Amino acid sequence: MVVNKCLLFNKVPDGYPELGVTLKLDSTPQIDLDAPLKGAILVKMKALGIDPYLRSRMQDPSAKSYVPNFSFSLGEPISNFGIAVVIRSENPAFQIGDHLYGQFILKNEEKLPWSSYLGTLGMPGQSAYFGWKPYSYAKPACGETVFITTAAGTVGAGVVQLAKAQGLKVIASAGSDEKVNYAKSLGADVAFNYKTKSIGEVLDRLGHGIDIYWDNVGGEVLEAALDALNPFGRIIMCGAISGYNTKTQYGIKNLTQVITKRITIHGFIVTDFLAKMGEEFYSEFPKLVVEGKVKHREQLYYGLESAEQALIDMLKGDNIAKPVIVLDESL
Amino acid sequence: MVVNKCLLFNKVPDGYPELGVTLKLDSTPQIDLDAPLKGAILVKMKALGIDPYLRSRMQDPSAKSYVPNFSFSLGEPISNFGIAVVIRSENPAFQIGDHLYGQFILKNEEKLPWSSYLGTLGMPGQSAYFGWKPYSYAKPACGETVFITTAAGTVGAGVVQLAKAQGLKVIASAGSDEKVNYAKSLGADVAFNYKTKSIGEVLDRLGHGIDIYWDNVGGEVLEAALDALNPFGRIIMCGAISGYNTKTQYGIKNLTQVITKRITIHGFIVTDFLAKMGEEFYSEFPKLVVEGKVKHREQLYYGLESAEQALIDMLKGDNIAKPVIVLDESL
Repeated sequence: MVVNKCLLFNKVPDGYPELGVTLKLDSTPQIDLDAPLKGAILVKMKALGIDPYLRSRMQDPSAKSYVPNFSFSLGEPISNFGIAVVIRSENPAFQIGDHLYGQFILKNEEKLPWSSYLGTLGMPGQSAYFGWKPYSYAKPACGETVFITTAAGTVGAGVVQLAKAQGLKVIASAGSDEKVNYAKSLGADVAFNYKTKSIGEVLDRLGHGIDIYWDNVGGEVLEAALDALNPFGRIIMCGAISGYNTKTQYGIKNLTQVITKRITIHGFIVTDFLAKMGEEFYSEFPKLVVEGKVKHREQLYYGLESAEQALIDMLKGDNIAKPVIVLDESL
Repeated sequence: MVVNKCLLFNKVPDGYPELGVTLKLDSTPQIDLDAPLKGAILVKMKALGIDPYLRSRMQDPSAKSYVPNFSFSLGEPISNFGIAVVIRSENPAFQIGDHLYGQFILKNEEKLPWSSYLGTLGMPGQSAYFGWKPYSYAKPACGETVFITTAAGTVGAGVVQLAKAQGLKVIASAGSDEKVNYAKSLGADVAFNYKTKSIGEVLDRLGHGIDIYWDNVGGEVLEAALDALNPFGRIIMCGAISGYNTKTQYGIKNLTQVITKRITIHGFIVTDFLAKMGEEFYSEFPKLVVEGKVKHREQLYYGLESAEQALIDMLKGDNIAKPVIVLDESL
């Protein structure tokens, strides 16, 4: 028998998660590695991702919703995307040593670090890829201008690089000067620190509007982007981190711009596209990483004990790069 | 020489337009009916429509906007859709007696009253037709539920009837019991007075959400509709009358629902579709009216002098039906 730790959802946070309060590490569960599998597989987790959307799932489960099972359940383990390796298998589709990410067996012919399959080659990179193309919510045209928030994050950085490759002008925002410089190094034509400047001020200087807004933050920036959009502009709503850790939500007052400017707004969740587009992603995107066409960076945390701190760091913007929780040093 | 009256945009209204303050009737312009046309045509206006969107064009013209020429200019005549008859022509494409609506020569083979070409066969009916199909922002599927606001107005009534014809369940709201009954007479499965009930209460009783929201009002009802939408719901933003006459705009606090539920929001302006779809509309929609498949109703006002009162009545919901300004009794 070996210990099989998990993180329990302990208390709905009022604002930012509180270390040791919002989540509780439970080290009591055990697992018998030799138990009968009855046709199943047994995997060992090698690494877990930490992603902003986790906070949006820490809601009061009694709140009415037409979306089933979105929030975590109090007292139950939380879950997220991770890299697992098969250590036993009674299913012929899975071999010992196969690396899994969700429903996919990762081939990794490019021999990239497995951790990259949590970030730019995992759910965040897929968000950028599926949201930008080939579903093309953005309908980008060469010469158009796109405004991308949290541009130093894995999703934002992916979109910055996809947009530049398609010949768009990229305006990027991030929350520190270091992140602003990183966004510039990825090719952003204009990058600014949203804590000291607004998109309105940036556009006043540039003298034009934006055609596409990639929204990872919501709230006041979304409102400013509605003002900044050109006619027939498009908004891709991918995240809303500005509101995840606040009790009250910012009220957006200028939605009539959607009519006046004939704007289209698409909200999406990356997993909806996996069944149809997952194979294409895994056959295309790793190549771009190997060729250096999509750069990314990550920040390692060690052990499930560090996961809540990593989440808090990310939500507060205190992280440098994509947090990866290392569970197996052979990663 | 004959008098050629017009209505000047005199003062940006704070709230509802004020009779004799917001607009000024100018009876001083004259026109020489025998002046040389230099290849042009001379038309006589027979009737004008009054539409809610007119209020949204009465904005402070100094407000920054990336949409050119949307607001009326202070001191200049306002404009709207009307029915005109050609009384002189030096252009072979136009014959004396031709009836015009915008760029279209109306054939009216169905011999419908010309006034209907301002309402259900004019811009409001086109809004319903283009917004609902065949562009199909709504992507309606038989058995789905659609919620339609201002369902007794010309746009709303058109959508109610198009949606019923496609086998959808229709929930309709309007601002008086009389209008609620009218919406029911058009086929709405459920109709309610938004002044005494909310869409949330209605859905609590029905026990299900909505798939499509046709928005003519914006504000709090849009917010409630976001809560009420099922996953993969669609919103067609056609108007936002709840905010047209208020100084401050209601802030919508639950836009993250767009992500969680993968909602798509389309804003549109009917005239964008005219060049491509206008002929189809005029060949299809009058038939539906003649066959009784699209019912409509209107309320006559007489003379340009009555136009501002008609606008105020409509914006306050004090009208019974589509206001038509009759300028020529032979209409």
